[in-house]
Amino acid sequence: MKAAVWHGQKDVRIEDVPEPGHPPAAQVKVEVAWCGICGTDLHEYWSGPVYLPAEKPHPLTGVQTPVILGHELSGRVVEVGEGVKRVNVGDRVALCPIIGCLECRWCKAGFMGLCERVAFLGSSWHGGGFARYLNVHEYMCYRLPGSVSDETGAMVEPWAASVRAILQAEVHPGDSVAIVGAGPIGLMVLQAARIAGAGQRIVIEPSLRRQGIAQLLGATAVINPLESEVVEAVGRLTDGGGADVVVECVGIESTGQLAGRITRRRGRLVVMGVFPRPSPLDFTDLLFGEKTVMGSMGGYGQFERAIQMMADKEFQADPMISGKIELEDLVEKGFEELIQHRERNLKILVSPE
Amino acid sequence: MKAAVWHGQKDVRIEDVPEPGHPPAAQVKVEVAWCGICGTDLHEYWSGPVYLPAEKPHPLTGVQTPVILGHELSGRVVEVGEGVKRVNVGDRVALCPIIGCLECRWCKAGFMGLCERVAFLGSSWHGGGFARYLNVHEYMCYRLPGSVSDETGAMVEPWAASVRAILQAEVHPGDSVAIVGAGPIGLMVLQAARIAGAGQRIVIEPSLRRQGIAQLLGATAVINPLESEVVEAVGRLTDGGGADVVVECVGIESTGQLAGRITRRRGRLVVMGVFPRPSPLDFTDLLFGEKTVMGSMGGYGQFERAIQMMADKEFQADPMISGKIELEDLVEKGFEELIQHRERNLKILVSPE
Repeated sequence: MKAAVWHGQKDVRIEDVPEPGHPPAAQVKVEVAWCGICGTDLHEYWSGPVYLPAEKPHPLTGVQTPVILGHELSGRVVEVGEGVKRVNVGDRVALCPIIGCLECRWCKAGFMGLCERVAFLGSSWHGGGFARYLNVHEYMCYRLPGSVSDETGAMVEPWAASVRAILQAEVHPGDSVAIVGAGPIGLMVLQAARIAGAGQRIVIEPSLRRQGIAQLLGATAVINPLESEVVEAVGRLTDGGGADVVVECVGIESTGQLAGRITRRRGRLVVMGVFPRPSPLDFTDLLFGEKTVMGSMGGYGQFERAIQMMADKEFQADPMISGKIELEDLVEKGFEELIQHRERNLKILVSPE
Repeated sequence: MKAAVWHGQKDVRIEDVPEPGHPPAAQVKVEVAWCGICGTDLHEYWSGPVYLPAEKPHPLTGVQTPVILGHELSGRVVEVGEGVKRVNVGDRVALCPIIGCLECRWCKAGFMGLCERVAFLGSSWHGGGFARYLNVHEYMCYRLPGSVSDETGAMVEPWAASVRAILQAEVHPGDSVAIVGAGPIGLMVLQAARIAGAGQRIVIEPSLRRQGIAQLLGATAVINPLESEVVEAVGRLTDGGGADVVVECVGIESTGQLAGRITRRRGRLVVMGVFPRPSPLDFTDLLFGEKTVMGSMGGYGQFERAIQMMADKEFQADPMISGKIELEDLVEKGFEELIQHRERNLKILVSPE
């Protein structure tokens, strides 16, 4: 079968790899319907290895580059290994890409994302979503109801991560939430904030197109950082105090610092952006404002809830899908397109056809 | 009267200033017994203005440099203004240096330290502790019981700040707490952690003398960062996970980053160090570990509790006092001594005599 294999920086090849065989015990074989391109895929392509195990085999899975990329996928279970109970052949599923050891204190406590030897589908696993088939642990599978399309299903993973971030930040009804960056994650966080009952939902984003989509998806205000002084603008919208909760969805030095500044005293800043290296934070502002900065790691624990919100039509996927391409075009029409034409793109879905 | 007046960087003068007159309504006149030198005083002396209002008058108090320094003090009420009810002439008191507007949402909600126009004794107030007398709001005064000496009373302010930081971090009995830096604040945080029931109390500190005092004050382990790989050492002491709570008490780039790394997954890092500028934080580590970084601003709200712990002899002041000097020697035997001979010093108390 064809698969997108990471060999090195700017060296992702669409090549023939062996199709996975019958799944081992407690695993299932999934036929991919759609797999979305995530910002981390772009990071790995453009400046990786970031999280890929290039130096030595991954301690849990033994996987080492080259690896098949892709972790935001929907598909159909086509074979089940021995003892599988959670899903059946024919089930349509979305996958949680987090693979835990199931033995450490974190896995046992229900925090598999914090597993001491955590691995990830499409990064440190034997397969990825940019291929027709892959074998995965059955616990990674979440059934999709008929009302959730394959395309929407491919967005369960980032959507669950967004739902979890808003939950971690303890957004209460009426809270003001500011979102830095209206890429796919920012727009999903916006929707999660809206569903959580946030009052003010402020989006900071320079792209006019993304601003428009943010308004469509429930932003109560958009701020163009190229035109307005953001700290002042957020201050005006929030009675001078800054937002109760700020979610950073970009991952660069300037937006990291900006996010801290627009967080109100005793407010919570959640970091979702991928920062390639340690980035400055104003600890004095943190101290004098008694602000809290927290990380939220993926969507584990929130997949059922996230899928239910999709089934209830509370989540809108379509405005965020900017392209649907085939696997063989992944590099040109996917990675390069997203890097060179940020303005016209959001989420691009890839079919293994 | 003589007072220590900040005129500029490395320009603190012991000079004659007018003694404050009869206190206005709701204020009292305090005769200083002892005033401790705080790290922020050193910052203002060596590299200020950091927090001092040098450019323009302070928005709440109208104070502008030159100002009298000193905010960690004990003393005696010698006159009271009209309507004062909280204290009487003759009362021995410690002072909370935080001055709020009493009108903004933060003051009204009980978070005076977060007042939108907050001012500080010894920084943006009409007087400071490095003088014989000062007038202060009566709400800043906390009565000292007879069992708390004037010297110990001069340590109420940093002690309350330490108590509050440990409370904010939600240290529960049995938690492991790691403290980066065993200066006066680090040693007070250590004591607050011990009283809060922390199990492992790990102190990271290169100075042998400070290591010894940390052990005396309840450290269960000390790590010399010049001799040991700190992350590994904390890992060994905490079953591999890092400390539940880490308190950064230094305020430099390397210790800021180290503090993040030795915080366990989903652990809390509290920043107490004074960082002169934005400092790098590993947001990726924060995200993947779902760690929380929080600021804790002074000791407001914890003064009664902090004084009670002193009265109950749970807090040990003496091992932390490395010198007692007179006001006229403040620069040479205080500031310069602390900067040039860190090794042999901890808290230096200053008498207005």
